[in-house]
Amino acid sequence: MDCLFCNIVKGEIPSAKVYEDELVYAFKDIAPQAPVHVLLVPKKHITSAQTLTPADDALLCHLFAVARHIAEETGVADTGYRLITNIGPDGGQSVPHLHLHLIGGKALKWEN
Amino acid sequence: MDCLFCNIVKGEIPSAKVYEDELVYAFKDIAPQAPVHVLLVPKKHITSAQTLTPADDALLCHLFAVARHIAEETGVADTGYRLITNIGPDGGQSVPHLHLHLIGGKALKWEN
Repeated sequence: MDCLFCNIVKGEIPSAKVYEDELVYAFKDIAPQAPVHVLLVPKKHITSAQTLTPADDALLCHLFAVARHIAEETGVADTGYRLITNIGPDGGQSVPHLHLHLIGGKALKWEN
Repeated sequence: MDCLFCNIVKGEIPSAKVYEDELVYAFKDIAPQAPVHVLLVPKKHITSAQTLTPADDALLCHLFAVARHIAEETGVADTGYRLITNIGPDGGQSVPHLHLHLIGGKALKWEN
């Protein structure tokens, strides 16, 4: 399986790392929509939020805990931000490996 | 505390219910951005994803499980959809009670 985000997690493709632990890798989006735009990726390959199972519950909660941490570290926890996960074609999911977008640092638009 | 979503959960303000169980209430957004636009709200009042604590882990995972269920029921699980939670002013959070937007049924734009 040749997955872009698995390769980024393994360091085989370079990325601007923001955070890493045993379960999660986070890096700057290469096409940022705002001053803060971080992608949070579980190291385990999961296709999308639609394919999460109860076995992934702890991982999902950890992903959100890391998002809160990154929001604090990047200074957007108080000013506000948006968490997004895209699923499948209509959702505009560009890489079929579950990821959370954390976007902030400006007043975000509301266009979907 | 006078919270719009707490009042919707209690039935004191009408809403177009999509799903309900002991922990979660889901209803159609009154200003839909797409053919499917559902708001998923924990019945417990939590301000935002930034104020979630480990004590809310099971609730957070349940919210995602309900999202998957609603995606199936509304026919967007395969075509794709987007899950969003807005946090604070820059995020455009309109109601300070944690909610997930589930948006699908068309090819979504990517503007934040």
